[in-house]
Amino acid sequence: MANGEHSLIAKVMNRISQKITSGSLNQGTKLPSIRSMARTIQVSVSTVTEAYERLAAQGIIRSRPGSGYYVAISTPLLSLAESSPKLDREVDPMWISRQSMEAGKDVLKPGCGWLPASWMPEAGIRRALRELSRADSASLVDYASPLGSLPLRQILARRLIEREITVSAEQIILTESGTQAIDLLCRFLVKAGDTVLVDDPCYFNFHALLRAHRVNVVAVPFTPTGPDLELFAKAISDHSPRMYITNSAIHNPTGAVMSPNTAHRLLKLAEQAEMTIIEDDIFADFEREPVPRLAAYSALGRVTHISSFSKTLSASVRCGYIAVRQDWVEGLTDLKIATSFGGSRLSAELVLTLLTDGTYRKHMDGLRARLSRSMIEATAKLEELHIKPWVEPKAGMFLWCQLPHGIQAADVARVALADGIVLAPGNAFSLTQSAGSFMRFNVAQMSDERLFRSLAKALEVCS
Amino acid sequence: MANGEHSLIAKVMNRISQKITSGSLNQGTKLPSIRSMARTIQVSVSTVTEAYERLAAQGIIRSRPGSGYYVAISTPLLSLAESSPKLDREVDPMWISRQSMEAGKDVLKPGCGWLPASWMPEAGIRRALRELSRADSASLVDYASPLGSLPLRQILARRLIEREITVSAEQIILTESGTQAIDLLCRFLVKAGDTVLVDDPCYFNFHALLRAHRVNVVAVPFTPTGPDLELFAKAISDHSPRMYITNSAIHNPTGAVMSPNTAHRLLKLAEQAEMTIIEDDIFADFEREPVPRLAAYSALGRVTHISSFSKTLSASVRCGYIAVRQDWVEGLTDLKIATSFGGSRLSAELVLTLLTDGTYRKHMDGLRARLSRSMIEATAKLEELHIKPWVEPKAGMFLWCQLPHGIQAADVARVALADGIVLAPGNAFSLTQSAGSFMRFNVAQMSDERLFRSLAKALEVCS
Repeated sequence: MANGEHSLIAKVMNRISQKITSGSLNQGTKLPSIRSMARTIQVSVSTVTEAYERLAAQGIIRSRPGSGYYVAISTPLLSLAESSPKLDREVDPMWISRQSMEAGKDVLKPGCGWLPASWMPEAGIRRALRELSRADSASLVDYASPLGSLPLRQILARRLIEREITVSAEQIILTESGTQAIDLLCRFLVKAGDTVLVDDPCYFNFHALLRAHRVNVVAVPFTPTGPDLELFAKAISDHSPRMYITNSAIHNPTGAVMSPNTAHRLLKLAEQAEMTIIEDDIFADFEREPVPRLAAYSALGRVTHISSFSKTLSASVRCGYIAVRQDWVEGLTDLKIATSFGGSRLSAELVLTLLTDGTYRKHMDGLRARLSRSMIEATAKLEELHIKPWVEPKAGMFLWCQLPHGIQAADVARVALADGIVLAPGNAFSLTQSAGSFMRFNVAQMSDERLFRSLAKALEVCS
Repeated sequence: MANGEHSLIAKVMNRISQKITSGSLNQGTKLPSIRSMARTIQVSVSTVTEAYERLAAQGIIRSRPGSGYYVAISTPLLSLAESSPKLDREVDPMWISRQSMEAGKDVLKPGCGWLPASWMPEAGIRRALRELSRADSASLVDYASPLGSLPLRQILARRLIEREITVSAEQIILTESGTQAIDLLCRFLVKAGDTVLVDDPCYFNFHALLRAHRVNVVAVPFTPTGPDLELFAKAISDHSPRMYITNSAIHNPTGAVMSPNTAHRLLKLAEQAEMTIIEDDIFADFEREPVPRLAAYSALGRVTHISSFSKTLSASVRCGYIAVRQDWVEGLTDLKIATSFGGSRLSAELVLTLLTDGTYRKHMDGLRARLSRSMIEATAKLEELHIKPWVEPKAGMFLWCQLPHGIQAADVARVALADGIVLAPGNAFSLTQSAGSFMRFNVAQMSDERLFRSLAKALEVCS
């Protein structure tokens, strides 16, 4: 069969499959006859016949002799979309991240969780790539070592020690991303049916990631100084969780910082309950005055510390890491090899160059200043619209705001989306759906005046 | 506390932790007193005190008041090493891959599963990196789109169509590696306790990967034309498996090719049993005369096709992909985002360049010729030692050989390792440990005469 014919058949198959997955063709629905389909989409009868037969072979459609073809999708075992609470597209976290990833240049993304490309150290990355083009051949073509680049791990250890986290390079495992770091720890520490605690609100991908592990997720209300400890203690006695995932400094989405007293009491609870705390610290370098981390209080005992460079250097260069108690390194590394056969040596080399040639330090100094200016401007403009910050973040890009009385964030998001603006309504971050009147803003994505005009309009429409 | 002091404490902690994980300090063993430890390793008493206290806080050691400190490791939930059959280090697959990844320049690796760095298209990669340093900023700093680079997926689709696999770019999901591709499919299709079929022998990382998913792995004996279909049918009726993972062309470790008849009957069995076949085709481009793939017979129905460029272009640039039925794309992509928040855009750009600028095609033409020469040479040299190929591979780098009568591959591997040679004894690939007299050789890693001298010696010692 000619390639052209092959791809034509594939096109027809996709046209039908997509209608099925999008829901516009439901299970049991009868498909148009082969002839009428061939007419409608202007292809030969033989092409449609072949397409129908292959879709039938795939179990996507079924043929009833003498009657025609009918939709019959077989569903897989695990579908996050199905296992998640049914949400409108506009407030479905999965969809928000995918929208933000796919959004074109003209779309505004105050709801997305990262910085604009123009804020990243582009020149430094270009320089690092040119340097990499002269690296030794092993760096270019060989597998990374199981833990990943030693020089990079040594630098990361030094950086953590500066934050009072006692660690050595042998306790650091490089990963592809912060997400992969948490995923590995979940594989290592929990099994289906276990309970894991998260904050309410928290980074929405924690919900999706934990659903992928089929664990029971329990959300503990978050206060401006950290999780509500009375409810945290109650969650422990009610569910005996194995794990708690949080950001201890620059919390996503609230921008709040955990107080030393909360941290201390939280650790005592975790120790009594023999549960592990995963401290996701990917926003660490945005901080202006560092506060002690949970990992510093516990010396990587009950606490495992993870981070990455996706928010600070590049999301295209994937590089994260786990800082963990020594006796877990071996097992976690086996898991990393088994499930990914090691990380990207190239990405690690690139990050190493940017950390050692001064690019990173200079870039972050500028970024912190720029973010604090944007934070002030965005806060002022939002307050003109009576959108009030829940806390005044000390640093970072996130502003967690309450909308004027009675207005639902999901409604506002829907209206704004029509104007090509992707917002992040509060319930996307709330397992209990109790943040309906909140919205997470990214102050680095709010320079365009269109946003505020559209917001003003949306608030009016929705009030 | 000074940073120097911090890192000194960490050093002491590691020294002890490593002794514990390596097994030289067992659970319950009493540690040296703080003073004697301080003397032995030449650090201050306060440093050792601090290190002991932190190890105690980590639950790695326990203090018994008035008696001293004792080893008390807490084990995690999932440890692949523990869940795998107890093997000597020399035949432990996990260990072989890690050895091969860590091995220094002077070590010979005829047991490893990839090509020497000098065989990879180094110049092309350097050129591609320089080109990438001039790419648009989005490619350098932004997240990839959920499915990954469309231009790359379009090229991959065309390449698959050339192999008679009917697919469109919308059915291709980019991943970090072939391993991550299979891992995603396992998450999507199986749950703990399900049964998955593999070949006996098969690529050893399948065992580790499947253990990480806590599934029941059943191995079906592999013949020179594919799996033994009678035993395959029996395994289906005995275990009603959900999935089967194999390489249909250039099988690892045997180098055998599945016959069309076996493929056809295998697919019928899979369709009756409603099980999914994962076709891992990472050695596809080594083939000299392409044979039809399972994915071509089934039009991506019962069969999901995965591959990567780790074996052909670079293992440092991580880029693999899944070609899958349209109605699974959405769910798999959600899982990919949830567990890794997308792949490396940079790696995809790099692979795209190498596929489009002609580097890849030229490189593979040369590689195929070079491999067939090496295959002939290695076969001849091994036969001088009465080491006989099980089949004569049509292509690829692997030679699955039977050792002279009565000689155990594990013993030979142990002797060779003393000479700095990492071999891959048969049982590393055999779930049932029934390949004790076989050895997998990588003909691309056998140019050094030391290997054959050492092999000759080892055979003599072990016979």
